[in-house]
Amino acid sequence: MGTLGPDCGSDSGSDAGAGAGSSADSHPDRPRVLGTRELCSTRIFSVHQERVVLPSGLEQDLAVVRHGGAVAVAAVGANGRLLVVRQYRHAVGDWLEEVVAGRLEPGEEPLAAARRELEEEAGMRAEHWREVSTFFPAPGFCSERMTLFVATGLRAAGPDRLAPDDDEEIEVAWRRPQDVLASARDAKTLVAAAFVLRDGAADSGLT
Amino acid sequence: MGTLGPDCGSDSGSDAGAGAGSSADSHPDRPRVLGTRELCSTRIFSVHQERVVLPSGLEQDLAVVRHGGAVAVAAVGANGRLLVVRQYRHAVGDWLEEVVAGRLEPGEEPLAAARRELEEEAGMRAEHWREVSTFFPAPGFCSERMTLFVATGLRAAGPDRLAPDDDEEIEVAWRRPQDVLASARDAKTLVAAAFVLRDGAADSGLT
Repeated sequence: MGTLGPDCGSDSGSDAGAGAGSSADSHPDRPRVLGTRELCSTRIFSVHQERVVLPSGLEQDLAVVRHGGAVAVAAVGANGRLLVVRQYRHAVGDWLEEVVAGRLEPGEEPLAAARRELEEEAGMRAEHWREVSTFFPAPGFCSERMTLFVATGLRAAGPDRLAPDDDEEIEVAWRRPQDVLASARDAKTLVAAAFVLRDGAADSGLT
Repeated sequence: MGTLGPDCGSDSGSDAGAGAGSSADSHPDRPRVLGTRELCSTRIFSVHQERVVLPSGLEQDLAVVRHGGAVAVAAVGANGRLLVVRQYRHAVGDWLEEVVAGRLEPGEEPLAAARRELEEEAGMRAEHWREVSTFFPAPGFCSERMTLFVATGLRAAGPDRLAPDDDEEIEVAWRRPQDVLASARDAKTLVAAAFVLRDGAADSGLT
């Protein structure tokens, strides 16, 4: 485990962050960033307060959680069922069933991260990968961008599998996509179920 | 606009926050919180660093974004189309089409917030409301809980409508749910489209 590095109140006026536009951005339909200040920083994300001028001319202070991005994997078995992992989520104080997912490592491509997470979290590898959507879980205040893959042609990774992180205590289960849509409480998992239901015939029964 | 109130580094060891369990929680399948420290706080959320003991006995430092919760509204017209609003999202540096949504005000019930947001953002009221899902947009690090409603029987709110926030510059459009699922880049909007597609016959054409 890395230690958290709170670094509150440091000024960094030129750091507009990835995806936020920059102070030099003069595109007329985008805000202009007058300044950025880091409020705090953790192992997973940092928080910046930014002063922006909206296209209307209105000035606003906006707080943004800057996050390095993530992937999610809708792993579909030969029976059409969706692989979910059950894990305790401290942020929401409960156990959730979610599709395989995880953060991008620095410089890592989304597909490589998806393969790694499927192996680490579920001990599985997949023959076929298809990118189905890229979306933002919480665009109102967080920069996180998530790429969703459908993975089919699943097999056990075998004895040389990548080990899970020591902080991950994970159980695997297989659920019908319609049951996942009806009962999951995690946004990316609902989105994954929706795409598997839409494309079901193309992704299940092939492997 | 309120000003941001950064309040970094203040210790508040007893504040475990809503939904996170408490220091006194001895439920065996939940972590025990040893301490909480607020790293920073903004108008929309606060960030806490928490020391927890997992059920396995492993101790961990976890950073959590604490958020007061939100609602989303899948407003479906008589033609079966889904109401979306287009707005600039500074956190992701782009314009997105999203279903109507917004944060709960302190003490506000989700349905009341949903009615308010539909009127403020789109100038509409709805006859029929149905809660279809409650989910977490980013449970890996954020406590935000979102309640999704399907609203039908839509009509213009009229001249006495609630005005939008002065920071909201919003355009309204109507999209086919299958087009929203194919092209939206906002998680709650994808989830909303999925439920409208699943229940389409029950929610459209009635009004």
